[in-house]
Amino acid sequence: MDIYDHERMRQFFAPKNIAIVGASSRNAWFGNMLNNSERLGSGCCFYPVNPKAEEISGVKAYKSIADLPESVIDFGVVMVKASLAFDAVQQLAKRGIKNLFLISSGYAETGEKGTLQQSELQKYCNENDIKLIGPNCLGFMNVADRYSIFCGGAVEGKFLPGAIGIVGQSGATSEIIATRLLQKMLGISLYITTGNEAVITAEDCIEYLIHDETTRVITGFIEEFRNVTKLKEVTLQAAQKGIPLILIKIGRSDKGSQAARSHTGALSGNDAVLDGFFRQYGIIRVDTIEELIETAGIFTHCSLPAGDGLGIYTLSGGLGGLYADLCSDLGIRLPSFSRQTISRLMAVLPDFAAPDNPLDLTGAGFRSGTEKIFEILGSDENINIIAPLCIPPQGAFDSDLARAINEIFISRMDGIGKTIVPIPFTEMNDHAREYFHKSGVYPIEQPELGFRAIAHLIRYSQFLRKTGNIKEKRENH
Amino acid sequence: MDIYDHERMRQFFAPKNIAIVGASSRNAWFGNMLNNSERLGSGCCFYPVNPKAEEISGVKAYKSIADLPESVIDFGVVMVKASLAFDAVQQLAKRGIKNLFLISSGYAETGEKGTLQQSELQKYCNENDIKLIGPNCLGFMNVADRYSIFCGGAVEGKFLPGAIGIVGQSGATSEIIATRLLQKMLGISLYITTGNEAVITAEDCIEYLIHDETTRVITGFIEEFRNVTKLKEVTLQAAQKGIPLILIKIGRSDKGSQAARSHTGALSGNDAVLDGFFRQYGIIRVDTIEELIETAGIFTHCSLPAGDGLGIYTLSGGLGGLYADLCSDLGIRLPSFSRQTISRLMAVLPDFAAPDNPLDLTGAGFRSGTEKIFEILGSDENINIIAPLCIPPQGAFDSDLARAINEIFISRMDGIGKTIVPIPFTEMNDHAREYFHKSGVYPIEQPELGFRAIAHLIRYSQFLRKTGNIKEKRENH
Repeated sequence: MDIYDHERMRQFFAPKNIAIVGASSRNAWFGNMLNNSERLGSGCCFYPVNPKAEEISGVKAYKSIADLPESVIDFGVVMVKASLAFDAVQQLAKRGIKNLFLISSGYAETGEKGTLQQSELQKYCNENDIKLIGPNCLGFMNVADRYSIFCGGAVEGKFLPGAIGIVGQSGATSEIIATRLLQKMLGISLYITTGNEAVITAEDCIEYLIHDETTRVITGFIEEFRNVTKLKEVTLQAAQKGIPLILIKIGRSDKGSQAARSHTGALSGNDAVLDGFFRQYGIIRVDTIEELIETAGIFTHCSLPAGDGLGIYTLSGGLGGLYADLCSDLGIRLPSFSRQTISRLMAVLPDFAAPDNPLDLTGAGFRSGTEKIFEILGSDENINIIAPLCIPPQGAFDSDLARAINEIFISRMDGIGKTIVPIPFTEMNDHAREYFHKSGVYPIEQPELGFRAIAHLIRYSQFLRKTGNIKEKRENH
Repeated sequence: MDIYDHERMRQFFAPKNIAIVGASSRNAWFGNMLNNSERLGSGCCFYPVNPKAEEISGVKAYKSIADLPESVIDFGVVMVKASLAFDAVQQLAKRGIKNLFLISSGYAETGEKGTLQQSELQKYCNENDIKLIGPNCLGFMNVADRYSIFCGGAVEGKFLPGAIGIVGQSGATSEIIATRLLQKMLGISLYITTGNEAVITAEDCIEYLIHDETTRVITGFIEEFRNVTKLKEVTLQAAQKGIPLILIKIGRSDKGSQAARSHTGALSGNDAVLDGFFRQYGIIRVDTIEELIETAGIFTHCSLPAGDGLGIYTLSGGLGGLYADLCSDLGIRLPSFSRQTISRLMAVLPDFAAPDNPLDLTGAGFRSGTEKIFEILGSDENINIIAPLCIPPQGAFDSDLARAINEIFISRMDGIGKTIVPIPFTEMNDHAREYFHKSGVYPIEQPELGFRAIAHLIRYSQFLRKTGNIKEKRENH
């Protein structure tokens, strides 16, 4: 990304004084925008434009774009209906406001006439150096830097700044992604919805996130890549920086592809070709929002493993068997322990016939000798990733016992030189999330999704290694 | 199951006065047992036997089995170590106490010597008409009838009676199953752990649950079926009663199979053969605890569909595409709507180009016209299952709007003659679970798992129809 473009995009995603053309209390958009901005603690100022109102939601309104104060506004939001929007865009541009967000729907997603209107808009923006997001989207929320023109109403939870970028071609779906990330205390850098992408595309947003110096993991909900040449360029840049792209790309099925088409006017393309492309370029494709969240959680918290061997210890033989089956389904290797590891394990876990991987500590072993287990597995050279047992405190188990079990790996994980992915015995809740968050640990919340995420981590490490892009060692958390 | 055996098992699972040989405050077993019994509100009386204590956890103790009161005790629990347990079993039997639970481990799961001890125990029990559960398990909890000798410490939540039976060969794993069911307000009939199954096997428990008149869905965590002949018999009985068996059977992988072997002494058998057997006998095999829970939830709440066509409506095109892809992966058919359905939909949802399945109500349609959608889909003969949008109240959406959206299907689902499986837009929480529970609805909590459960429901209906076992129409909830 050239320096001019990057700086322009940086300004785009940091709007300070924002005109809102068509702001009204008859729909939820402006109210949501104010509300999100306030929840984020942003210093954005809003200048609603509405010929029929003195004020909207307590904010002074202006009769027309011409009435807006001079040289103050650096960003324009247009929420009038599609037939009036182009005129508003032109008026804003003539006043020098060239960073825009067009909310309105009624463009390429509705058929031929809308497609023509969108082309006209696109041409005008390109010829006049206008950066525009939309139409038919919810805007963006720069959580890390605290700027928001986001007009969706469904992001729940505390807006936590962090290292995960979100690019959503579907507004509502990406709101679910943002909500789930926040619920799991996974912080967001910049969350952008792109809709029909008349000007700024998902590829542009991904490129920006790669270079924003905050984002370490990029997630996305994608219906169509409109610029595959650019996508190839940006994935190479991402690989060089070791920033993974974790994407849901719908359209595996005919129906899914059709839904994408009628939704944001996307042509979702030949899926098998795209899947091959993803593999070649190291893009991590996930099938569900839940898998995306677990994968983003593990990628933001774990070091890249030096190899593909996973070692597990748990307190139930039944769970061990369940985990082994899931790992086998996903092609995750559970190496047998070395002879030395086995004899060391037998010394600390009495009554043990033959310790195997996954290791069942048993009800007895689990209460004594466990503090050695983590170090013993850590010194086995066949094991690159350790999935230790962890216990959410305030559950069925005594809290002191739970903390003691967790401390075993929390206190030793930094020095051990392995990738650590804890597996909780009981279900995680908000209290447990906060507790583990403070320790810099992301426990997998559901074994199957967690193992899928581990498989992605292993494959991504292999991809970076193969393409010569692993330069430095990353530590856990 | 013959009447004598069933009556004997009924008594077995309803213990009233229980001797606990080896009860002690040095381990958690007896304390857990008391605690679980109390939480369940059971009227069970406990008679701890310990030569060195006057009382244990506030309960009067007896020096020896001989000291126990005459003609009172109807059940014996043995928690002394394996080398002493056989003697205790014999002493109890000689006093006429022939319903037993042996907690201790150290039998077939530990190798040759333990296997011999277990055989000896088994032989004695069979020759002396002793029903025994264990060794190496956690006992059982008869939630529906309020009897418990359960000594596990990890079942969380309120013990809710209901229609789901649990058979667990792994104690800890089945505790997770019980906990998750309760968290999702799915009531339990009888929860049995079977461990090494010296006498009472998982097959025996399944047979009992089929005939207990309370259980409508049987779930299980299985490492090995020890009596395949009996399994065949009981699955036929289950099919005749339309009671589905929803089982995790570990051992798909070598490691999983090995884990099962060292855990409860199970030989987990050739998995491919078993998988074929499961399909032939209509046993629903699930891969994870999460899939088991969703499947049990849907089977207890939904009528069996008359065909395999699923119709979905949601408020986001992106989600519609995601759902379509997941359904395609799982072989779930999303039929196109009939011409009449399309024209009726276009009449109530203005600005609609071409309504398709999954149906995107869009942000506008979602607020008006939605009340007709459910009935329109309901009268389309291609659609047998409807997955309506539902909104957990007290989330990001206005609660009144959420309730109105939910009422659309809640108020109409009984008369519509279709299978109803709501899909929530935002994440479920305890409040939402209670709200939907009161309406007799089980929303799927994660789309992928929910669609897997729907696929199981469709295949199970097809199985019952093919084997001539659908006799009556079941209503939703």
